[in-house]
Amino acid sequence: MTVPTCKQLINGKWQESTSGNILPVTNPSTGETIAQVPLCDQSEVDKAVQAALAAFPAWAKTPPQARTQILFRYKHLLDAHFDELYRLVTREHGKTLAEAKGSVRRGIEVVDLACGIPMLIKGETLSETGGSVDYMSERFPLGVCAGITPFNFPAMIPLWMFPIALACGNTFILKPSEQTPLTAIRLVELLVEAGIPDGVMNLIHGARDAVNALLTHPHIRAISFVGSTPVARYIYQTGAANGKRVQSAGGAKNHFIVMPDAPVDAVIEAINASAFGCAGERCMAGSTLLTVPGATERILEPLREAAAAMKVGPTDSDESVDMGPVISKPHLEKIHGYLAQSEKEGAKLILDGRHVNVESAPNGYYIAPTLVDGVNPQSGIIKEEVFGPVLGILRMNSLDEAIEQMNQSPFGNAGVIFTDSGKAARQFRREVRCGMIGINVGVPAPMASFSFTGWNDSFFGDLHIQGTEGIAFYTQQKVTITRWF
Amino acid sequence: MTVPTCKQLINGKWQESTSGNILPVTNPSTGETIAQVPLCDQSEVDKAVQAALAAFPAWAKTPPQARTQILFRYKHLLDAHFDELYRLVTREHGKTLAEAKGSVRRGIEVVDLACGIPMLIKGETLSETGGSVDYMSERFPLGVCAGITPFNFPAMIPLWMFPIALACGNTFILKPSEQTPLTAIRLVELLVEAGIPDGVMNLIHGARDAVNALLTHPHIRAISFVGSTPVARYIYQTGAANGKRVQSAGGAKNHFIVMPDAPVDAVIEAINASAFGCAGERCMAGSTLLTVPGATERILEPLREAAAAMKVGPTDSDESVDMGPVISKPHLEKIHGYLAQSEKEGAKLILDGRHVNVESAPNGYYIAPTLVDGVNPQSGIIKEEVFGPVLGILRMNSLDEAIEQMNQSPFGNAGVIFTDSGKAARQFRREVRCGMIGINVGVPAPMASFSFTGWNDSFFGDLHIQGTEGIAFYTQQKVTITRWF
Amino acid sequence: MTVPTCKQLINGKWQESTSGNILPVTNPSTGETIAQVPLCDQSEVDKAVQAALAAFPAWAKTPPQARTQILFRYKHLLDAHFDELYRLVTREHGKTLAEAKGSVRRGIEVVDLACGIPMLIKGETLSETGGSVDYMSERFPLGVCAGITPFNFPAMIPLWMFPIALACGNTFILKPSEQTPLTAIRLVELLVEAGIPDGVMNLIHGARDAVNALLTHPHIRAISFVGSTPVARYIYQTGAANGKRVQSAGGAKNHFIVMPDAPVDAVIEAINASAFGCAGERCMAGSTLLTVPGATERILEPLREAAAAMKVGPTDSDESVDMGPVISKPHLEKIHGYLAQSEKEGAKLILDGRHVNVESAPNGYYIAPTLVDGVNPQSGIIKEEVFGPVLGILRMNSLDEAIEQMNQSPFGNAGVIFTDSGKAARQFRREVRCGMIGINVGVPAPMASFSFTGWNDSFFGDLHIQGTEGIAFYTQQKVTITRWF
Amino acid sequence: MTVPTCKQLINGKWQESTSGNILPVTNPSTGETIAQVPLCDQSEVDKAVQAALAAFPAWAKTPPQARTQILFRYKHLLDAHFDELYRLVTREHGKTLAEAKGSVRRGIEVVDLACGIPMLIKGETLSETGGSVDYMSERFPLGVCAGITPFNFPAMIPLWMFPIALACGNTFILKPSEQTPLTAIRLVELLVEAGIPDGVMNLIHGARDAVNALLTHPHIRAISFVGSTPVARYIYQTGAANGKRVQSAGGAKNHFIVMPDAPVDAVIEAINASAFGCAGERCMAGSTLLTVPGATERILEPLREAAAAMKVGPTDSDESVDMGPVISKPHLEKIHGYLAQSEKEGAKLILDGRHVNVESAPNGYYIAPTLVDGVNPQSGIIKEEVFGPVLGILRMNSLDEAIEQMNQSPFGNAGVIFTDSGKAARQFRREVRCGMIGINVGVPAPMASFSFTGWNDSFFGDLHIQGTEGIAFYTQQKVTITRWF
Repeated sequence: MTVPTCKQLINGKWQESTSGNILPVTNPSTGETIAQVPLCDQSEVDKAVQAALAAFPAWAKTPPQARTQILFRYKHLLDAHFDELYRLVTREHGKTLAEAKGSVRRGIEVVDLACGIPMLIKGETLSETGGSVDYMSERFPLGVCAGITPFNFPAMIPLWMFPIALACGNTFILKPSEQTPLTAIRLVELLVEAGIPDGVMNLIHGARDAVNALLTHPHIRAISFVGSTPVARYIYQTGAANGKRVQSAGGAKNHFIVMPDAPVDAVIEAINASAFGCAGERCMAGSTLLTVPGATERILEPLREAAAAMKVGPTDSDESVDMGPVISKPHLEKIHGYLAQSEKEGAKLILDGRHVNVESAPNGYYIAPTLVDGVNPQSGIIKEEVFGPVLGILRMNSLDEAIEQMNQSPFGNAGVIFTDSGKAARQFRREVRCGMIGINVGVPAPMASFSFTGWNDSFFGDLHIQGTEGIAFYTQQKVTITRWF
Repeated sequence: MTVPTCKQLINGKWQESTSGNILPVTNPSTGETIAQVPLCDQSEVDKAVQAALAAFPAWAKTPPQARTQILFRYKHLLDAHFDELYRLVTREHGKTLAEAKGSVRRGIEVVDLACGIPMLIKGETLSETGGSVDYMSERFPLGVCAGITPFNFPAMIPLWMFPIALACGNTFILKPSEQTPLTAIRLVELLVEAGIPDGVMNLIHGARDAVNALLTHPHIRAISFVGSTPVARYIYQTGAANGKRVQSAGGAKNHFIVMPDAPVDAVIEAINASAFGCAGERCMAGSTLLTVPGATERILEPLREAAAAMKVGPTDSDESVDMGPVISKPHLEKIHGYLAQSEKEGAKLILDGRHVNVESAPNGYYIAPTLVDGVNPQSGIIKEEVFGPVLGILRMNSLDEAIEQMNQSPFGNAGVIFTDSGKAARQFRREVRCGMIGINVGVPAPMASFSFTGWNDSFFGDLHIQGTEGIAFYTQQKVTITRWF
Repeated sequence: MTVPTCKQLINGKWQESTSGNILPVTNPSTGETIAQVPLCDQSEVDKAVQAALAAFPAWAKTPPQARTQILFRYKHLLDAHFDELYRLVTREHGKTLAEAKGSVRRGIEVVDLACGIPMLIKGETLSETGGSVDYMSERFPLGVCAGITPFNFPAMIPLWMFPIALACGNTFILKPSEQTPLTAIRLVELLVEAGIPDGVMNLIHGARDAVNALLTHPHIRAISFVGSTPVARYIYQTGAANGKRVQSAGGAKNHFIVMPDAPVDAVIEAINASAFGCAGERCMAGSTLLTVPGATERILEPLREAAAAMKVGPTDSDESVDMGPVISKPHLEKIHGYLAQSEKEGAKLILDGRHVNVESAPNGYYIAPTLVDGVNPQSGIIKEEVFGPVLGILRMNSLDEAIEQMNQSPFGNAGVIFTDSGKAARQFRREVRCGMIGINVGVPAPMASFSFTGWNDSFFGDLHIQGTEGIAFYTQQKVTITRWF
Repeated sequence: MTVPTCKQLINGKWQESTSGNILPVTNPSTGETIAQVPLCDQSEVDKAVQAALAAFPAWAKTPPQARTQILFRYKHLLDAHFDELYRLVTREHGKTLAEAKGSVRRGIEVVDLACGIPMLIKGETLSETGGSVDYMSERFPLGVCAGITPFNFPAMIPLWMFPIALACGNTFILKPSEQTPLTAIRLVELLVEAGIPDGVMNLIHGARDAVNALLTHPHIRAISFVGSTPVARYIYQTGAANGKRVQSAGGAKNHFIVMPDAPVDAVIEAINASAFGCAGERCMAGSTLLTVPGATERILEPLREAAAAMKVGPTDSDESVDMGPVISKPHLEKIHGYLAQSEKEGAKLILDGRHVNVESAPNGYYIAPTLVDGVNPQSGIIKEEVFGPVLGILRMNSLDEAIEQMNQSPFGNAGVIFTDSGKAARQFRREVRCGMIGINVGVPAPMASFSFTGWNDSFFGDLHIQGTEGIAFYTQQKVTITRWF
């Protein structure tokens, strides 16, 4: 049986790639190949850039409120196709339907934000500054922008980028993950249906070569990226060296601190959702639990029980599943490797998910929730991003010590505290050196109206994705100083 | 007779450099050595960084309105020492006293801006976003920041940087130009007098080695730079590769367009001030005149006469001088080189300032205003930044053609049109691809409340110096999402 | 044949009024009665207020982005019913279909704006202000708000108000003009269809008694009003005396200045559209033409010819009509009265529209474009708002004199200049004492992202309708200062 | 011995009033007359308005950054005269030197804020909105503004008003309380010394007649007022009826809630400072204590002891005094009246300050801290503003009940909770219907960068004093829509 081959959208036309390189797209719940994706080369990237470059002047001159009329129609179409979209996310990524729903909803919220652009890209005036001189500033789009997105949020992360970029008057090239290109295609089809002009939005498929072609192309002005830290750093350095604006979000190692005054049930629910949701494949996943005296004993056993009770299985066919597969066999093996190493270093897997048996889907890439206690703070599972359903546990002697432990991480995405104490929450919020803080919120990923503010090695660049900074990223200011003789 | 040796301020103590490398500081009006400046090495840079790092936590925690109390005192001291400061600028840089005055005034305006920081670094809230969840964002300082400043504005450009950085809660290291370090020293002395705590502000002297030490130091979080485009690009790339925020302003090639409806006298005054002010040594200098039919004949001869009438001479001893020397002998020779080359290519120096005779200061570095007509658009004096009192003239057939000519420049600082037509001014403002537009304003350098928004090869980075972007540059956001069980 | 009777929406139920007072709603193109409208009394107003009050707590607590989901659906429904809506406007008001279209489009833009409220109602934070004290502010809705709207924009003006009020979390009572209630009903029906909860939006019909009941009701927190200046002043004073926020837009007397450098054809088109569009029944209509030497002779005769060529007739059945009827017979007679009086005072009707003969609709309320020259500056048609297709002409000696003449008006809505001169436009913009300036724009009514900023007797209150001020009007700030022991 | 007579500043000249009405100004610590203050009449008010009106055009056209240069000098002078100013406050008002210091510091912070006005009065731009149409808005000053200030903050409250008004380009008339005019005079003298041009700032003295003359004067555009609620309401209604902008802050009845988890010592210190600071004469004073089970017993006795230990006496001569006199004998008698009435209704004065004996100052107006328990919630001392060192105590059964009790107050200034619980603090912050919330902060009066946001009967108007709203209050927007033919 043949599977469809993914097309690219260049200059308003859906077309096959000419590159000849093809990868399979897999449903990780079952291991089945569900599509073929081409890996385009530099010449196809250039075709997309030329299309976007040619479309730029007219789109940039289109009034902001006319650009948003297309986005309002897009919003309506996304809502109308909501079921289809989240099912597609589950099918190619493996997260549960509930998780997929939430992620698509979050993505649509960025379209909502972009619909408000006429209020959000205003410039400034100051008049009578001396000698009848008046000042004004205006925001201009940059030109051709590109988005390079990861496999873990096939709808949400592309939607973090192009709606804002387009609303600001830029033209765009999206290169989704070659592991999860299907949702992106559907997102772009709906944007075409909403009336986006030819060349304003383009979609290409590819991997390393396509990325490098984007990073070095002289006519691309800005790159938005989400992925792992080493790649994020490379993207930033290479893009910057080539004179581009770059916002490059990397990986993370997010910590929970549980204080003795936090309610057990709610904490456990929140930790499980954060550590094991999306099978741990998200940069906002909590992956290290820091307990302080008084909390440890209350939390650990109930946490183990709740994690052990999670049903793991194929997400596309079973709504009762609590956690789906990870993205691929190699990734599964990498997670196993981390665990083996930690055991070798003396850690104890108080819940070991490696031997999960999913009968209904024997070829899926499954690992069940795993809790690692007694772990060395220098171990890989504490210092690196595992990107799987693995929660390391470190016992701290105090809140101060826990904060210090967190602040030793080179990453800086999220930090979470569970407490009823306003004082503890405030200390945590002010002192922790990461950009997104959850007070009793397990996954403090901001909705669209706030920026996704990773710090340190979790983000490279000045202006973050979404929110006010996201809009600033896609625009440049011009200042005009006027007097009349 | 001995001259003083410049000291460095590290951790609140003025101290001699231990590097052993020394350069003379010269009064360009006379060629006299007026001071010795050390070139510090990596170990001294590190000492400054360690001091700034140690001072950071307490300064970051100092309430914004307490930080600004020091800046209010600083503002008062700068006003009180205004005469001394602008005379020092003239002495080490050579610009006229009037020009020096204006530049110091502009610098002080940035202190004024920084005094308002409690209103300008607010974060945001949004409450009741679902399930009793509330959002807030806060702005945090970055840590240790550094400024690397050029010779041409010894007071103004340092003041573009550290007052805002400090007001935002960062600590700072200033490395002024080794050609003009004296004003910077006085600026920092006054800041100490205003009460800045030890280690919060540091001053070092140096050249390439010091710059590289700053760019690669792991504890420096942000670099602000102003200089030539090749160096600005290097600074940006190197700083970015080392994980720092960078705002890096480079050179320029700014054009005037004169329309036939513009009044001759006012235009000529504005062009002369822009092209020959500061001896052309500023990135906002107009250096190419684009005339359109109807304007050319009205403007050229009066312009030549007015430029020829400018008195060139030593600025520190003669208030009647209209234009001072350039910064150094090598720089003078470089300018001569550009002119020789343009003549070789067929251009005609309709005003030739090379043979100016300044009897009262025979060792100064003088060249008088120079007008180059019939110049090849591909010539160095059209395509590169000469940084001298040289104005190239190109005759265009229309406003459209003139704008097209401008937009071929890789630079993007300033563009100026002289006209009474609202329509022409609007077309110019919207279509010209540079960031600072003058409508009948010869030097459209924004005052502190607007950002200094170079485009293209005139600026590397996302967030410009001064204004709203300048504040965003020196701060990072943290988003907190809270619910209570 | 019977006509329908307008219903009221109270607490989510469409219901007949119990008041017993009924007025006819007329199609002014034909004089036909097309509906009956009840005039409700204080008890019905109170029922609506109680419903809105009861619905307020839940609506105020609904997350902003959940409130806007309803508005996004509403936006979609308004677009889908666009034809129906503008035809209804034409039918009950009489303006041309093209004018009705434009006005509905402008109204929908306010819904677009309101969809962006999560970005627009953020509060502020400032942390570490001393002793570990943090500040935050939040915006809260006010409670029950009411809108009282005029006959001349049956869709646009209601849409100026309730979308923003609702998005901010308030509940609302709309009382549309009793002369044009039908469009308002349809607007509210569509909002119900979009999912607005019961009681959040309410619609009542009425006249003076209903208005007074709203103005004095202790549970109404804010009143938005648009109408004539005497009523607007009364609304403001009475609402303020009863402790409410009020934004109350009144009448106007808007002037055009034509400079000699303005192109005749474009100016005439703009003046005709402004002075005679909507039969002059809008507070942004230009109703006084100030000519300066050099412009007068170029403009007047072509203007007279173009105005004379306008086709007047029934707008609901004839798309070729350029101008429709005025709203009612009494209003037509009032306009005639102004013209008779001006003739008595010596003015000359160089185009007299009083005797227009519309054969296809003999019972409509028609008057054709009318130009009054030689008019006394103290005359009613210069000093008062005629609200008909009447343009008074005053000959000025200079721009200065024209600006002075404008600034003598007690009104302050719009002022328009036609010129190519940047200098003249700037002088006009800065010196004219009214809030909305058109530079070569005949009707400078701002789109939704800017406030509708009448000055002087054209507006009573602090915070104008639409734009940033419109949002501030419907919200109140709370400041919280926190420290933890 | 004669005392000085207060002068007025009109049009830059200090002058005696011609009214003939004179009141004594008293040092409430001693009862001594320290000055004579005239009560000016309508004709003098008119002279001040005419001066301010004449000075307005030039001041409005002065560049913002030039206006703030005067304010920077003013800031410097206020700091330089800090001791003199706070001693003057104590002398005419009676609060302790420490309290006076704090209040002057708070006032100076508003000058700090006003120095930042070039960043804070920017307008907006939005370009290319269709057909090459561009939008811009600008902020203009209003014209002549007036401030009417109360006796209780002789420096701070005047400084809330005129620095912002002047920075925005308005001219100003200050009428300080006739009970405490001396500090205001000194404030204005220093502003003159700072270089404010003649007529831009004016000072008059007076009482009811002067207020009415200001409220009805056709050339006054805005009134800022702080006082008691009945007068504040009158000011708002009368000012609004006369077409002015009004911000009118009234009285308050602020509640503390103490939760069982709050630390006793810190709470008692905070309550005492709030309830008895400034002898209870401030609209931010906490005057009702709501205890909940578990907290009552812990708090009451220590609170009584601490309050009983406060030293009451003359503040101008004794730095060890904890609390000074109230403002006047009639006011003292009014407070006694409230207490007598509450006793009659059955309340018990568990600390009775009425019989305090201040030997060193037998003619001062003293009453010591007074605690009233068992008070009827309908009693005057619970429902009305006593403005004395009297704290009523109500025992609540729960936080919910306490919030409900608070929300029954018609006032809406401050509400304070003492707790360590983030959950309780959040509920309090969101549910309490007043505008300024203290979480463990006894007097949540915002510093200048946030608005002083009274709700309900504590404020009449749309735009509050200070902060962003304070700037909006003193400016009006003009929107310009431009296209060029």
